[in-house]
Amino acid sequence: MEMFLENQFRKDPVSGQWVIIIENHDHFKKLLEFSRERKQSSKVEKTKYSEGFEQNTPAEIFAIRDEGSEANQPNWKVRVIPYEQPFLQIHGELESLGIGLYDVIKGIGAHELVLESPKPNIRIPELGTDQVEYVFTAYKERILDLKKDDRFRCIIVQNNHGEATGDLKYHAHSHIIAMPIIPARVKNGLRNNLEHYHYKERCLFCDIISQEQTDKSRIISENEHFIALSPFASRSPFSTWILPKAHSAFFEWATELESLAAIYHDTLVKIGTVLNSPNYVMVLNTGPNIIAGQERDYWKTLEKDYHWFIEITPRFRSYSSFETGSGIQVNVVSPEKATQLLNGNLKF
Amino acid sequence: MEMFLENQFRKDPVSGQWVIIIENHDHFKKLLEFSRERKQSSKVEKTKYSEGFEQNTPAEIFAIRDEGSEANQPNWKVRVIPYEQPFLQIHGELESLGIGLYDVIKGIGAHELVLESPKPNIRIPELGTDQVEYVFTAYKERILDLKKDDRFRCIIVQNNHGEATGDLKYHAHSHIIAMPIIPARVKNGLRNNLEHYHYKERCLFCDIISQEQTDKSRIISENEHFIALSPFASRSPFSTWILPKAHSAFFEWATELESLAAIYHDTLVKIGTVLNSPNYVMVLNTGPNIIAGQERDYWKTLEKDYHWFIEITPRFRSYSSFETGSGIQVNVVSPEKATQLLNGNLKF
Repeated sequence: MEMFLENQFRKDPVSGQWVIIIENHDHFKKLLEFSRERKQSSKVEKTKYSEGFEQNTPAEIFAIRDEGSEANQPNWKVRVIPYEQPFLQIHGELESLGIGLYDVIKGIGAHELVLESPKPNIRIPELGTDQVEYVFTAYKERILDLKKDDRFRCIIVQNNHGEATGDLKYHAHSHIIAMPIIPARVKNGLRNNLEHYHYKERCLFCDIISQEQTDKSRIISENEHFIALSPFASRSPFSTWILPKAHSAFFEWATELESLAAIYHDTLVKIGTVLNSPNYVMVLNTGPNIIAGQERDYWKTLEKDYHWFIEITPRFRSYSSFETGSGIQVNVVSPEKATQLLNGNLKF
Repeated sequence: MEMFLENQFRKDPVSGQWVIIIENHDHFKKLLEFSRERKQSSKVEKTKYSEGFEQNTPAEIFAIRDEGSEANQPNWKVRVIPYEQPFLQIHGELESLGIGLYDVIKGIGAHELVLESPKPNIRIPELGTDQVEYVFTAYKERILDLKKDDRFRCIIVQNNHGEATGDLKYHAHSHIIAMPIIPARVKNGLRNNLEHYHYKERCLFCDIISQEQTDKSRIISENEHFIALSPFASRSPFSTWILPKAHSAFFEWATELESLAAIYHDTLVKIGTVLNSPNYVMVLNTGPNIIAGQERDYWKTLEKDYHWFIEITPRFRSYSSFETGSGIQVNVVSPEKATQLLNGNLKF
């Protein structure tokens, strides 16, 4: 089927959001200039998050360590500690309250910090895939543990790469956040997945993967277990999804972490090469916590209709105020063009 | 009913979004410092958008002019012209396409610029309320006209105050955007309004207004026809809604524009006083365009269940990366505190 060559509205079937995709050479050029002008961040010898300074951080919750090493001592690969400035409190009963029309829930939650490397100044593309696999193992173990706490409905892993301040800015790290509520963003996805499942009796993401494998123009990378693609209604230039090819609602059930580490590393290397190591946001979306005795509509078929995925979004200076009010993103690099650039099939 | 004093999740009944409301003194202090450090923007003698330079802009679509003056000549109060760098094309048939799972619509739309004053360097608080009333009259006339075009489903008026570049930065202005789709943000609001109406047979916003009038702790301003309030689940410090007190789905049906201009002006003066004339985003939300022959579920009772409103959100430097992945905003100034500050009942 032929698409119009003009500007397009495209709808993301998962979020239900429309975006405007345009090929605007001026905006594209500005975006590349912004990437190329980026200065390398400064380096430090060590920080409080480095190996050897374990006593300067809160006690670890979890770590992947060399055999025989002790908690809160050196010789670790990945360390998970409580975040020191949390917006949510880990202790306390979950209390909720109706005030007339309004709903309030006490700000209970977990906020953990994953230190992805014992050394500072290292970004994912410079880590070996072994190390990346350790990071995913830490995510998995922490999610499994946090899901035992039935105060938490939703767990998100995120990495706002390059935007941290203080010592943390020198250390590859991510955040694990467990919350007693399901954010509207996640709920919209759950609703759209469920609707698709009701209608088709198939998972929406599985259908997307199958369509993308036929079309091929938006596939960035693929291995035995995973696929990386530029989403059809990509909200931001070079935004990328990584999905398991076999249906699975929960990341924490994944066993192919070696394969995941390989495609994740490969994708970040490609993005780093084309965009000069940009700052980026990574979000790992796994199915919410099914809590016994609190059944919700969207939990009934969750295992069948939800599909976990990772979203990587490079950050750019905003180039338009259009988004602000309309709530519609304008993307000046079509996903097809982003794919060609990332795969080295198109040069600037 | 007593609320917890700790951090809270609060849910906005309109958008369905949860926010975290915390009273964090450090963050609050940073936010105020940021406001106070703001430099006054530079001034210019005149720009291409000023009175006397009408020939340098595209021909006007609409204007409020002194009697006897001619189109595209001086002696105007408010002028509406096409935006010169639109992402959407005004000409062409609406075409939509399914590509397997995906939906695409041609990038058709209107993007107009409202010049809110014939002179540069003037912000709303410095305009007389007469002039503000002309601005609202221009919005009204343009929306009525654009809604005759049945390619357009949704019309949004927005003002990204203080973020413009070039000549536009010196001129109070707003954007009117007409689109063939309904953004997910708007659709969520429509859905939640409709659900409330089905359940209660009352408008959600009317119920909010009634509850706020009883509670009083979040009312910033009130006159005969309008109320300005700090929303219960305010996503951002000092965010403010202005709503008509009598039920009405469509801004463009409003006749009390003098009263609206007065409360809008008063609200911006209060915000400007407390926050040192901040940049802000204004969005005017009116009911979507009901297009004959294209009935949608949420159109059936739209006149009864939707309520138009204006949202004003001062802009601050982002103080957290928490929002990015979770999609949950953290607001460090509770709406009750913002109301006290705006009303002069609490000093920094």
